[in-house]
Amino acid sequence: MEVKLHELDKLYGDANKAAEARRQYLEKATGAKLENIGKTIIDLNTVVGRNIENVIGAVQIPVGVAGPLLVRGDYANGYFYVPLATTEGALVASVNRGAKLVTESGGARAKVLKDGMARAPLFKLPSLVDAVEFVNWVMQHFQEVKKAAESTTRHGRLKEIQPFVVGNYVWLRMVFSTGDAMGMNMATIAADAAARYIQEEFPKARLVALSGNMCVDKKPNSVNFLLGRGKTVVAEALIRREQLEKLGTTPEAVHEVNISKNLVGSALAHSYGFNAHFANIITAVFIATGQDVAQVVESSMGITTTEPREEGLYISVFLPSLEVGTVGGGTGLPTQREALELLGVAGPGNPPGTNALKFAEIIAAAVLAGELNLLVALARNELASAHRKLGRGAK
Amino acid sequence: MEVKLHELDKLYGDANKAAEARRQYLEKATGAKLENIGKTIIDLNTVVGRNIENVIGAVQIPVGVAGPLLVRGDYANGYFYVPLATTEGALVASVNRGAKLVTESGGARAKVLKDGMARAPLFKLPSLVDAVEFVNWVMQHFQEVKKAAESTTRHGRLKEIQPFVVGNYVWLRMVFSTGDAMGMNMATIAADAAARYIQEEFPKARLVALSGNMCVDKKPNSVNFLLGRGKTVVAEALIRREQLEKLGTTPEAVHEVNISKNLVGSALAHSYGFNAHFANIITAVFIATGQDVAQVVESSMGITTTEPREEGLYISVFLPSLEVGTVGGGTGLPTQREALELLGVAGPGNPPGTNALKFAEIIAAAVLAGELNLLVALARNELASAHRKLGRGAK
Amino acid sequence: MEVKLHELDKLYGDANKAAEARRQYLEKATGAKLENIGKTIIDLNTVVGRNIENVIGAVQIPVGVAGPLLVRGDYANGYFYVPLATTEGALVASVNRGAKLVTESGGARAKVLKDGMARAPLFKLPSLVDAVEFVNWVMQHFQEVKKAAESTTRHGRLKEIQPFVVGNYVWLRMVFSTGDAMGMNMATIAADAAARYIQEEFPKARLVALSGNMCVDKKPNSVNFLLGRGKTVVAEALIRREQLEKLGTTPEAVHEVNISKNLVGSALAHSYGFNAHFANIITAVFIATGQDVAQVVESSMGITTTEPREEGLYISVFLPSLEVGTVGGGTGLPTQREALELLGVAGPGNPPGTNALKFAEIIAAAVLAGELNLLVALARNELASAHRKLGRGAK
Amino acid sequence: MEVKLHELDKLYGDANKAAEARRQYLEKATGAKLENIGKTIIDLNTVVGRNIENVIGAVQIPVGVAGPLLVRGDYANGYFYVPLATTEGALVASVNRGAKLVTESGGARAKVLKDGMARAPLFKLPSLVDAVEFVNWVMQHFQEVKKAAESTTRHGRLKEIQPFVVGNYVWLRMVFSTGDAMGMNMATIAADAAARYIQEEFPKARLVALSGNMCVDKKPNSVNFLLGRGKTVVAEALIRREQLEKLGTTPEAVHEVNISKNLVGSALAHSYGFNAHFANIITAVFIATGQDVAQVVESSMGITTTEPREEGLYISVFLPSLEVGTVGGGTGLPTQREALELLGVAGPGNPPGTNALKFAEIIAAAVLAGELNLLVALARNELASAHRKLGRGAK
Repeated sequence: MEVKLHELDKLYGDANKAAEARRQYLEKATGAKLENIGKTIIDLNTVVGRNIENVIGAVQIPVGVAGPLLVRGDYANGYFYVPLATTEGALVASVNRGAKLVTESGGARAKVLKDGMARAPLFKLPSLVDAVEFVNWVMQHFQEVKKAAESTTRHGRLKEIQPFVVGNYVWLRMVFSTGDAMGMNMATIAADAAARYIQEEFPKARLVALSGNMCVDKKPNSVNFLLGRGKTVVAEALIRREQLEKLGTTPEAVHEVNISKNLVGSALAHSYGFNAHFANIITAVFIATGQDVAQVVESSMGITTTEPREEGLYISVFLPSLEVGTVGGGTGLPTQREALELLGVAGPGNPPGTNALKFAEIIAAAVLAGELNLLVALARNELASAHRKLGRGAK
Repeated sequence: MEVKLHELDKLYGDANKAAEARRQYLEKATGAKLENIGKTIIDLNTVVGRNIENVIGAVQIPVGVAGPLLVRGDYANGYFYVPLATTEGALVASVNRGAKLVTESGGARAKVLKDGMARAPLFKLPSLVDAVEFVNWVMQHFQEVKKAAESTTRHGRLKEIQPFVVGNYVWLRMVFSTGDAMGMNMATIAADAAARYIQEEFPKARLVALSGNMCVDKKPNSVNFLLGRGKTVVAEALIRREQLEKLGTTPEAVHEVNISKNLVGSALAHSYGFNAHFANIITAVFIATGQDVAQVVESSMGITTTEPREEGLYISVFLPSLEVGTVGGGTGLPTQREALELLGVAGPGNPPGTNALKFAEIIAAAVLAGELNLLVALARNELASAHRKLGRGAK
Repeated sequence: MEVKLHELDKLYGDANKAAEARRQYLEKATGAKLENIGKTIIDLNTVVGRNIENVIGAVQIPVGVAGPLLVRGDYANGYFYVPLATTEGALVASVNRGAKLVTESGGARAKVLKDGMARAPLFKLPSLVDAVEFVNWVMQHFQEVKKAAESTTRHGRLKEIQPFVVGNYVWLRMVFSTGDAMGMNMATIAADAAARYIQEEFPKARLVALSGNMCVDKKPNSVNFLLGRGKTVVAEALIRREQLEKLGTTPEAVHEVNISKNLVGSALAHSYGFNAHFANIITAVFIATGQDVAQVVESSMGITTTEPREEGLYISVFLPSLEVGTVGGGTGLPTQREALELLGVAGPGNPPGTNALKFAEIIAAAVLAGELNLLVALARNELASAHRKLGRGAK
Repeated sequence: MEVKLHELDKLYGDANKAAEARRQYLEKATGAKLENIGKTIIDLNTVVGRNIENVIGAVQIPVGVAGPLLVRGDYANGYFYVPLATTEGALVASVNRGAKLVTESGGARAKVLKDGMARAPLFKLPSLVDAVEFVNWVMQHFQEVKKAAESTTRHGRLKEIQPFVVGNYVWLRMVFSTGDAMGMNMATIAADAAARYIQEEFPKARLVALSGNMCVDKKPNSVNFLLGRGKTVVAEALIRREQLEKLGTTPEAVHEVNISKNLVGSALAHSYGFNAHFANIITAVFIATGQDVAQVVESSMGITTTEPREEGLYISVFLPSLEVGTVGGGTGLPTQREALELLGVAGPGNPPGTNALKFAEIIAAAVLAGELNLLVALARNELASAHRKLGRGAK
């Protein structure tokens, strides 16, 4: 009798035992030891069928904190210690030093400009005339489509449909408010219901793909950059001149690095990252707090601007597509939930949605801190020495 | 007396105790409980000063396996169980189903086309005439620059310098072979030595930033896409027609989804991801195996091609900039090392570099499996139902 | 006494004489003969101070026609002969052959999806809080801003303001309907008036540049691609299978070229042109008809889609940002006006705007014809032979 | 008896008479008058079968000059009057004012960094293993391929083949030196011969398209931006502080416009034009001098950098893909040849290729002049007033 690995959960009736059986099988099959992966505090019964399949245990990633970081947002107000899960030496220290600069200068102002999770089903019509008619029909029946979409969700609301026509293709980019959830599952399920409704009512339209890559999920892209997905956030700070001078640099020198590297360099590279290392900070926060880490791809797009002023260095970060949540996904796992608690944003906010907004503001401020510190380090020409001291693993 | 959080390691002389003290402080300061974050099997003394600072413990992320996946590469040959760390329900199952299809069809062929880690210091010259002279000088003194660079590393070799001139700016994109390490630290330190040497010998050149964003690290970009960074890998498979028919679809239907979504949709979105979800698979493998997860940003760029043939569906994936290593970074942590062992690629290869190459081939094959399964699911219009069943957290 | 070249018009009181004097001066200064440039039918008095300065005569470019081309648009209905000014051998013949295919298949359906000329003044605010407040203020005072903008123009109407915030920068992308004019001057002057009004009423906002490169004029970009500028147009045709077979090819073969070259090739190149040669046709029509030819840069962005059907080849072209007019610019010059008359679109339409819309539909259909023919030629592998026969100049 | 329009040349044995007959036919068919289009100095017999088909006459476009412009290049040295064909009022005046600033400051330094025309045939192989083998074979047989390619041309030389692999697709980007010709026809014909040779010797490789959109011709793209096509040119100037102050602005103010608009604005727009209006100048020169005007699309890509210095404003322009020639195409037409003579670059250079290089340097300097003037105008907030005064046509 042959049993498949994914059938073991049912067979054993206990996910932890099933995982053990899988580890034993894999150890035998591959010669590897999976002892440590098995030593997790996660009760696997709580994640199977929700977060993972074919589970064998867990991976453990060190978490450090950067802070205190003073954030002055519309939702986040006060000092925060930001949890960062990473194995890249020097990263936590970098954000920490940036946080110190920011905090001593009066903190980072942060604001969410837009909020909405998008899913864009792709339809094909017989002709472009039909395509245009289809779009008109959909826009005229927005209320019915909305009703169909929202029938699948307690918290999700269809805010808007952004239609795009190319020949006989039509993308309906549906934008949802999703409360404290990052909301991609919610949006997917709601878009599916909407798409089914639309197809029934407008049978000429054939659904080609429920996600037509105009959503855009987990691919760097212009749509999210220009129209937003998740939270569109900005943060800014004004670092006093004397603080930079104490570090042996000036607002002008940091500004020059920002222009040369983050603007001209990224222009030449045709990058979606006109910044120094947004991805580092965002990835480390995402891992620590149970976010959908693959979304770091578009969440880390953005622009850093600087401006030397008499009193110091103005610096801002713009994150057009920061996709975060405080409920759902991996946010409820034991360690991840604690990381969110550390920021005071675990679980649903009151009123709903405010925890996710607060979380987004904190991340933007942390990104600003990390960005600032790296620009200062580059201006002081000390990038390599930081890596020499703190990231010795790879030499 | 005030003690800073990052001074606690020195104060206690033990990283585990320092972490405990930090947790206690943070619990008091924020009201959060950090009990679970503290329960890690990692001896924090092994990671402080190497992988993390201000450490408070670890985050635990469930790991599942997809496989067996038959890979026929130049280095990876045989059946593999791919470890995936994720909290996104349905992902492991998706790769697993794709792996089944691929394996039953004879496996995925994989090949590394290029290999090299890049770091691009940015210099400013007084004028463009000087800039051109500078580039000529550097190219003529390649051997000396190479010597300076390689003086800092045992395994790294400077393979090539790709110069870019914009006005009086010059980027020297230095490409290194880095053995089994992903190599960014190695490249950074070596590029720093090279840049110092260059500046001394050519004093008109002023180093503006050791990383000038033409490297390109952790930002989506065209340079890596066209010239490669890390491993440039391709994988392909030929899925038999009857396999797809058994699933209720056809090569032609899957091909249509690929064209409509991955090519036309991504064209309209101006994406660097002409694919369905490379990032999902790459992120999950990266987390499980101790990679620098922020590099998923450029590692997940790429193109999926399909071609319906009489015998079935030809499918290929192209990953221009897959940045992976089997030594350094987080690869030596207890659970991560086991995940690499599961693939038979833990630690240095013999000859050096071959473990990383093998690892890259396996990832490309796993990406192909995941990609295939999602395209099939979309062709069958079942994306939402998978999320309904397996990713219930966020509703 | 020294006279500057640009002062000659005033000195002579006649632009033709001034041009003659300039030519004489230049001939003496450079040794060049400018005899032919002087032999123009343009009365230079009609263009100086309107279309050109420091005029010395005119350049003459051959014009050919492609047609008859059957267009079935909302405004253009019937057979058209499309004037193409070019010196690239084989181009007119190519469009002509495509037109034949299209016409014999029942013509090209064309439709304008969107219409609006944009100008995006860029403001800087003291802080992001001010920036957000500023955007809110502008949106609340849309009617007043509109009034200020429209005070400068008879035909222009401010349809919409699309705000973009990055740090303390704010772009206000103002979209105007501009009747039969391409409308960039109109939009510029109206945006200037609007910007002055806004600055007066909201003094914290400082105008950095009346055009902030988010308009976007004469640069390839995503904003116009996604949101449109000028006319957003689509055209489609269904080419009968037997027509292609008569040419020795098939819908499937042409489709394969389109996928491989226009989709995969352009994906790899990170192009804004997912097409074979939109720019050729658009440039030739623009030169012939007095358009602002530099706008071919964004007017030629777009996507070609194909779909083999049982009855033949479905082909569509999508032009997101086709910027054309039938009044203003060079449209009133003697030869250019005739080229517009040839299409029945010279001067203002009745009702206003309809001539420009009709013109856009015809261009889209001509682009489709040219695109179709080149794809067919490539499928038949005859590109080089066409150039050998018809473009012998450069060998 | 029915005669087709394109058969008239043969029927009449004289292109001028054939054109007349076409005009008569079209006037009757459409009601348009084509009197002025018929009044050209071009002997149509010299262009039919070379530059145009179905010719009906010519369009006339006013030409102005900007200058004197002091250029200090490796090939262009001295004062130049740049011919600009345009109907956009204010453009010539703008370049003229910029030329004055540049010339008074000591001129623009210009340099060609790279030179080569590319054509990239696209092949399909049965598998990726074949694809890799194919690339290896081609690189090993470079000399034979080169011989096949060069058998078709007197001046063209195959310099390099840049291979790109995506799955089983292979692009061979062949880069040619093409003397004074822009060289696209030459490259196309030579690439065709090379591709035929390759296919014969490596029959597994099937040519899908002689141009696979990785060339890249007439589409905005990253390949040319990073690797060059045609001439890669840079130019720079140092404008004295007092000159700018005389105009009521400063180096710092112009620099701020450049950063805000050309860098941050274009970053947000995801543009390939990190500049203010390269396309304006390039288009006007291209039309005046008989270039392939559709190539303005990629020729106008590029970056403007600025740097305020104590003595004034450093400004540079970078044009990665300026495609120009002084022989072939429309360069030999009566008026176009004169425009080239005005610059001292008509016909072949001595040694061959030097005229095209000189031409490229002059264009880069003219682009710099135009760019400088527009940035100054924006800094002085006078864009709209220039259009009000000089471009009155469209109001």
